[in-house]
Amino acid sequence: MSAVDFGAFVNDLASRSGQAILPFFRAHHVLEDKAPGGVFDPVTEADRAGEAVMRSLIRAHFPEHGVLGEEFGNENIEADYVWVLDPIDGTRAFISGIPVWGTLIGLTRQGVPVYGMMHQPFSGERFSGDGREARYEGPGGPRRLQTRQVPELAAATLMTTSPHLFQGEEEAAFARVESQVRLSRYGCDCYAYCMLASGHVDLVIESGLKPYDIVALIPIIEGAGGVVTSWDGGSAAGGGRVVAAGSKALHQAALALLAG
Amino acid sequence: MSAVDFGAFVNDLASRSGQAILPFFRAHHVLEDKAPGGVFDPVTEADRAGEAVMRSLIRAHFPEHGVLGEEFGNENIEADYVWVLDPIDGTRAFISGIPVWGTLIGLTRQGVPVYGMMHQPFSGERFSGDGREARYEGPGGPRRLQTRQVPELAAATLMTTSPHLFQGEEEAAFARVESQVRLSRYGCDCYAYCMLASGHVDLVIESGLKPYDIVALIPIIEGAGGVVTSWDGGSAAGGGRVVAAGSKALHQAALALLAG
Repeated sequence: MSAVDFGAFVNDLASRSGQAILPFFRAHHVLEDKAPGGVFDPVTEADRAGEAVMRSLIRAHFPEHGVLGEEFGNENIEADYVWVLDPIDGTRAFISGIPVWGTLIGLTRQGVPVYGMMHQPFSGERFSGDGREARYEGPGGPRRLQTRQVPELAAATLMTTSPHLFQGEEEAAFARVESQVRLSRYGCDCYAYCMLASGHVDLVIESGLKPYDIVALIPIIEGAGGVVTSWDGGSAAGGGRVVAAGSKALHQAALALLAG
Repeated sequence: MSAVDFGAFVNDLASRSGQAILPFFRAHHVLEDKAPGGVFDPVTEADRAGEAVMRSLIRAHFPEHGVLGEEFGNENIEADYVWVLDPIDGTRAFISGIPVWGTLIGLTRQGVPVYGMMHQPFSGERFSGDGREARYEGPGGPRRLQTRQVPELAAATLMTTSPHLFQGEEEAAFARVESQVRLSRYGCDCYAYCMLASGHVDLVIESGLKPYDIVALIPIIEGAGGVVTSWDGGSAAGGGRVVAAGSKALHQAALALLAG
């Protein structure tokens, strides 16, 4: 069974999780801290409702598959196929009412990301990919996604969630790249990678990611012609420090500056 | 003629400018620098098309009114009623494909903002207000807007366009507030003020605003129960350094910290 066959099922996961999540968006909702006394990390009822409905569908249709999720942990992750779920990537955007959060649905086979979707239920946008091609569905109509081939940093738009994301040496490394780009913007989590796949943003650099923050995005970025790796050029599937670029040239330039 | 009577006309301005602007969003578009060699300040064809259609409607329906716009300057601004227009507030978000830009349509009478609308044509959202009440129309259905009455900074969500917005002493002043809030986010221009009016964000602090960046937002924020002034507590209608808060207590706390 090829990864492409999962497309219809992933659309169903997106629709059902979106129905579970959307009533909580901009509504009065319960906040919790994952790390009391630590960094503010809100989790909403919506997060749990979205992940629960996806896990239940996966169990019913693919009982032999594993699941790695933000809210309910690991389940059978030694399986050949493992679903990697983040019901609300961008919880801070979510609780601030800003529609740049998204539901991330990724699928790995033997640890390699083979299919991914980012669903933004409020705007009704779906970005999906299988590493060979990437697609958009939304208010602008369906289309193929393709990255912009910007050759150099001086012409590039850079995005990251927040400049406060970076610790110690990371901060200096990020600043080296940021000082050379044409435009730098903050605040979008998964939405930034989808704008990169769409050809509106050229570079996304982040740190401290979990696998469920990035696995679903890898087949979208690569399917659109982009490159996404760790800061040392290895696989991005494990999370951590991640750099995504619309062109190979830009990716190389960013890697070199991040290395110092 | 009361300001409320302008509601239908403003809806028409929003619809017509949205039709002019939206085809350029996420399309290949021409960029220009307003200040060559200076700060990157993109202007798109969309900006001009949106303002032109609004000016033309205003001239046809209210030839005695003045217009102050971002793209085509001042026109009869000594008039009793003056329209204050920013076809695309958040041009950086616009060119990055992120739907948190908006069309700002404000109306002043003898220099006082009496009606305002923020229109986000991609998501189909309209936030409007006349200083006494404020309304939302969009995918979530129509509703009255009301700010959140957060009593103290420790419970507040703060937004600003970018931490790089602030120069010299402003940077330290902003940092004093930012260090005390529960959550700080970057990147939304006019959308942040509308989320404040909607009760999802509690504080917005910015600097270097032009009148057309803020005039339309004042009757929305005040109509929703919020407070918006300059950093020294005066009128925000002239732009410059602006602080908006969902509650009076929060506004006072922010003013005190900004003053040092």
